Amino acid sequence: MTNNQTMNYVSYFRPEIDSMTGYTPGEQPKVKNIVKLNTNESPFPPSPSVLKALNSFNYENLRLYPDPLSSYLCAEIGTMFGLSYKNVIAGNGSDDILNIAIRCFTDSTRPLAYLKPSYSLYPTLAALQGTPCIEIPLKDDFSLPEDLLVKAAPANLLIITRPNAPTGNSFPKEIMAEICRNFQGIVLIDEAYADFANDNCGDFAANFPNVIIARTFSKSRCLAGLRFGYAVAHEKIIEGMMKVKDSYNVSMLTQKLALASLWDRAYFVDCIAKIKLAREMLFLGLMDIGFKVIDSETNFIFASPPDENAEFFFQELKKRNIFVRYFPGPVTGKYVRITIGTTKDVSLLFSVAREIYSGMLSD
Amino acid sequence: MTNNQTMNYVSYFRPEIDSMTGYTPGEQPKVKNIVKLNTNESPFPPSPSVLKALNSFNYENLRLYPDPLSSYLCAEIGTMFGLSYKNVIAGNGSDDILNIAIRCFTDSTRPLAYLKPSYSLYPTLAALQGTPCIEIPLKDDFSLPEDLLVKAAPANLLIITRPNAPTGNSFPKEIMAEICRNFQGIVLIDEAYADFANDNCGDFAANFPNVIIARTFSKSRCLAGLRFGYAVAHEKIIEGMMKVKDSYNVSMLTQKLALASLWDRAYFVDCIAKIKLAREMLFLGLMDIGFKVIDSETNFIFASPPDENAEFFFQELKKRNIFVRYFPGPVTGKYVRITIGTTKDVSLLFSVAREIYSGMLSD
Repeated sequence: MTNNQTMNYVSYFRPEIDSMTGYTPGEQPKVKNIVKLNTNESPFPPSPSVLKALNSFNYENLRLYPDPLSSYLCAEIGTMFGLSYKNVIAGNGSDDILNIAIRCFTDSTRPLAYLKPSYSLYPTLAALQGTPCIEIPLKDDFSLPEDLLVKAAPANLLIITRPNAPTGNSFPKEIMAEICRNFQGIVLIDEAYADFANDNCGDFAANFPNVIIARTFSKSRCLAGLRFGYAVAHEKIIEGMMKVKDSYNVSMLTQKLALASLWDRAYFVDCIAKIKLAREMLFLGLMDIGFKVIDSETNFIFASPPDENAEFFFQELKKRNIFVRYFPGPVTGKYVRITIGTTKDVSLLFSVAREIYSGMLSD
Repeated sequence: MTNNQTMNYVSYFRPEIDSMTGYTPGEQPKVKNIVKLNTNESPFPPSPSVLKALNSFNYENLRLYPDPLSSYLCAEIGTMFGLSYKNVIAGNGSDDILNIAIRCFTDSTRPLAYLKPSYSLYPTLAALQGTPCIEIPLKDDFSLPEDLLVKAAPANLLIITRPNAPTGNSFPKEIMAEICRNFQGIVLIDEAYADFANDNCGDFAANFPNVIIARTFSKSRCLAGLRFGYAVAHEKIIEGMMKVKDSYNVSMLTQKLALASLWDRAYFVDCIAKIKLAREMLFLGLMDIGFKVIDSETNFIFASPPDENAEFFFQELKKRNIFVRYFPGPVTGKYVRITIGTTKDVSLLFSVAREIYSGMLSD
C-alpha cells in the first residue's frame, strides 16, 4: 500500500459533528508570571488536607480500578444534603454531569432550554446530541424574564445557572421554586458558583422530584485540576444518570483528594470569605473608575468599562499579562468577566484600569 | 409545599435510557485478602517513576485547570507512532475514547459493528446513542469469520478488539489490513491488550485514513486507577473527535503521572515479560488439569473447565476469595476469564483447580 493511495481522507463523521465548532475553553497560557483571571479558578491553593492525602496515598493502588461509584464521596455529599448516597452521582468535573444530563433528557425531539447569556458549554453539548436549543434571553439587567416558563415549555430539560455565569448575579429563590414546581420536565440548577452566593437551592433536591443540583470542586474547593463535580437529585434520576456515566469516570486520586477537601470545612469557609472580601473591593474600585458592574454572587465580576469598549480593555490587560475573559456578542460584548484573584491581583487590576481610563495610556 | 405532593416521580428520561440496563463493570470488592483476577488489572505496582512524579507534584497547582489537550502526553505518544501530537487524542481511560468514537461516527442511521464475543461495553455505548448494532459472531475457534466485511458493510464504525477480549486470541495482521483497506467507514482497533501481544496494528494509524488505534494505561502500564487512554489516527479524525471530548477530560495528576510512566520504558518491558511468563505457566498448567485454553496474547486467559461448567468453577473460586470473571451466554458461558496475576496467584489457582477437578471437593 502507498500512502498516496490510502491517505485520501473521507469524512465518516455524523454531519452534526462536521458542521459544529467545538467548545473553546478559556486560555490556559503556558507562560509564567501572568495574572490569570480568566477561568474562575481560585487564587488559593487547595486545603492542606489535600496535600496530606496526596502524601499518604499508596501509589501501588493505582494498578487497580477506582471505585466506579465514588461511594465514599457520594455518601458524604448525600449526608451534606440530608439525603443518601443514592441521591448523588459523581462526575469527572461538573461538565461531565452536564453532559450526562443532556444525554439523558434531550435529543432531536426533546429540546434543551437555557438562559442567555449563561454557560456557553450548554449549546455545544446539545449540538453533540442533535438537540434543538431554546435560548431564553435574560432581561437587560440580567434578571429572569417573566415569560421564562412559557418559552421553556417545549423543552424537556431546563438549565438555570444560579448564580449565573458570566453575569455573576443570582435569581430569587422563590421564583426558582415556582419554576421548578411548574416546569413539565427536568430543571437542572447549575450551582457551580453557589458557594460564593447568599443562598443556594440545595434543598430543592429533596423537595422536587424533577430537580437536579449540579456542583463542582473547581471553584470554591480550589481543585480545578482535579476534575470533580457532582449532582444531587431524586434517587430515580440518579439511577438513570448512572447508566450514562462512564463506569470509571472519576480517578482514584481524584476521589481520595476530593474527599480530603470535603472534610476540611474550615479552610473552605475561609477561602470563600476571602474571595467575598476581594470581590467587594473589586466591585467598589471598578465602580469608582466608572465601570458598570453587575452585582456578583460568584467568584468573578462582570464589568463594563466606562466607554463600553470591553474588547479594548481585554486586549490592554492581555498586553500586560493580565488575562480576563471576553465573550463577543451584542449583550456580552460590552463586558469583561474578571475572576476574583488575591487582593494583590485586584490592586494590580485597579492600577491598570486607572491608567487606561485616565487617558494616560502610553502606547 | 409538602413532600407527598411534590415527590411524585415522573420519568423524563429518553425512552432509550429508561429501557436499557447500564454496563456492569467487574466487581471491585472492598474486602481485603482476596485474589483479584477479574478485571485484568496488573499484579504489579506502577513504575517507580510514577511515585517520584507523585512526590514531586506541587499540589498548589491543583487550583488551576489542567491542560485541556494533554499536550505533553499527546506529543510523546505521537512521536512513539512516528506521528505528530495532532494525530493523538487523550482520554479519561480508553472507555472515554470508545464513547467519543461512538458519538462521532454512529447514530440511529449509522450502525456500529463489532465482533461477538468482544468487549461488552460497545453495545451499551451504542444504546446510549440510539445506534443499531451489527454483532458479527466469531467462528467457533474465536477467529475472524470470512464474511466479516459483508456483514459489517452497513455499519459506519467497525470496532475490532485485537487481541480480543474476553477470548484472548489475536487476529492475523494481514487480514486486519485487508479489512481496513476495504471497509467503507471507520475501523477502530481496540488495542487495550496489544502490549501483551506478538504484534500490533499501531502503524495503521499512519497508513490508513480510516483507522483509529485505541490504547489504555490500565493494563500494561499498571495504572487502571489513574484513568488514561488515547487514540491515534489521521489528523482530521482527531480534529473531529476533539469536538466531542470533554474540555478538561484528563485530570492534572493523571497527565503528570501518565507521562512519568511513559518515560520509564524499561519497567514497562519488564512487567510485560513477567506477565507473559506467568501466562505461559497458567496456560500449560490448566491444560494439564484438562481445561480447554484459548491461546492468549493478552494479560488474561480464557479457559473452559474439563466439564465445561464454568459457572460452577467461578463460584467455587469465589468461595475461596479468588475472583475471576464469568460471562453467561451460550458461547462465553463455558469459559472463565482469568487475569494473569503473579506467579504466586497462578500457583494458588492451580491448587484450587486440581482440588476441584480431582473430585476431592469437600463441600
